[in-house]
Amino acid sequence: MALQGNRFHKSVGIEFVELHEDGATMRLEVAEGHLNGAGVVHGGVTFTLADSALGYGIYKFVGKPCTTAEMKINYLKPVSSGVLTARSYILRAGRRLVVARAEVCCGDERIAEVLSTFAILG
Amino acid sequence: MALQGNRFHKSVGIEFVELHEDGATMRLEVAEGHLNGAGVVHGGVTFTLADSALGYGIYKFVGKPCTTAEMKINYLKPVSSGVLTARSYILRAGRRLVVARAEVCCGDERIAEVLSTFAILG
Amino acid sequence: MALQGNRFHKSVGIEFVELHEDGATMRLEVAEGHLNGAGVVHGGVTFTLADSALGYGIYKFVGKPCTTAEMKINYLKPVSSGVLTARSYILRAGRRLVVARAEVCCGDERIAEVLSTFAILG
Amino acid sequence: MALQGNRFHKSVGIEFVELHEDGATMRLEVAEGHLNGAGVVHGGVTFTLADSALGYGIYKFVGKPCTTAEMKINYLKPVSSGVLTARSYILRAGRRLVVARAEVCCGDERIAEVLSTFAILG
Repeated sequence: MALQGNRFHKSVGIEFVELHEDGATMRLEVAEGHLNGAGVVHGGVTFTLADSALGYGIYKFVGKPCTTAEMKINYLKPVSSGVLTARSYILRAGRRLVVARAEVCCGDERIAEVLSTFAILG
Repeated sequence: MALQGNRFHKSVGIEFVELHEDGATMRLEVAEGHLNGAGVVHGGVTFTLADSALGYGIYKFVGKPCTTAEMKINYLKPVSSGVLTARSYILRAGRRLVVARAEVCCGDERIAEVLSTFAILG
Repeated sequence: MALQGNRFHKSVGIEFVELHEDGATMRLEVAEGHLNGAGVVHGGVTFTLADSALGYGIYKFVGKPCTTAEMKINYLKPVSSGVLTARSYILRAGRRLVVARAEVCCGDERIAEVLSTFAILG
Repeated sequence: MALQGNRFHKSVGIEFVELHEDGATMRLEVAEGHLNGAGVVHGGVTFTLADSALGYGIYKFVGKPCTTAEMKINYLKPVSSGVLTARSYILRAGRRLVVARAEVCCGDERIAEVLSTFAILG
């Protein structure tokens, strides 16, 4: 589902890496088009990468379509090149809501931390 | 600054609308490339639009470069077409931190609410 | 419901002020027991006041028991005395989730801004 | 500092457990006064416990007074008795801002997850 038809993910350049028992890992190679006016990766890129790792991990875990209800991101360090990876961790999956966190790294360094709620549809 | 050189804003299709005393308004025409696998606007698009209204409004208000320290978004309603506008409201501008909220609308309907902290650089 | 049996609200000293079409207002007189080690009102007090305005406004609006799924608070200004009021505003009430924001003021001055998701029970 | 003079912590019944390299652990025995109208621990209690683990861990780590700039909490499971522990983890400590997360548990079970920004004073 989420992976194939997602045009925005494609246009941002997000790629699937790995599915885990409790989440998923996605990656992104930083390109010129990801940068903001200050020459660093735009916060919206990092957010979208984390959202993809969260959404896909949760979708595979609960086996039903789900949608981001809310998401909070803290930026820890600006980056301007390299490969970004986002790894999601499901903290609690209820009947209707799933809470998960995600870490975004550039190489070994954590560059953002995310905490989010997804709603299970249908 | 933020407006001209921002490649990610350009690639997402964000346009400046208006500067206010306490914030800014930005807009975006929904296109195919903004949609996710469920056929609705990807949360990362809405987030990026809100971030641009926040970042530009705060930059013009404080007169110094600033960066998103953290941001939280609640999605209120999915949309699949139309024009999205984001309006930011500065709640408090200190020497180092600025707190602001933003509303994202599609026509008359609010589709997302945002609360965020920016750090003033230098 | 929420008002009468809520022992923590009582022990914190929260009082009902007014019900609105889209939320509620609660108040609190700052006392010595609310202060932290720096002599200002503890963030947990401000959070609890906002939560009460959100929870009660949402409960009266939807007519069903509900619970805080998640809540984010930004502190705008420290205070050490006076009367605090929290006013909640419901942004969207769905079948299962309600999104609302709240403003906490001390006199005329806004001291905190809150954005939250509640889950409707049953 | 934070520990001795904090009247609200005392009135809530928060106790220091342990200092770690990257955070702190605090605890709380659930009592009648912590419950809300539904008979479960009030979200403000859980929030305050997490805030104390974050604040104290960060204060000892940076060696300077600091204050909660913003905090987000996701509730994972309601509890009505037992001992709650909060463990904070510092994710990044800059010159002016510290980002940290915290886990709140009741026994082995995680009941809340927190993500927060603190500002270093002076």
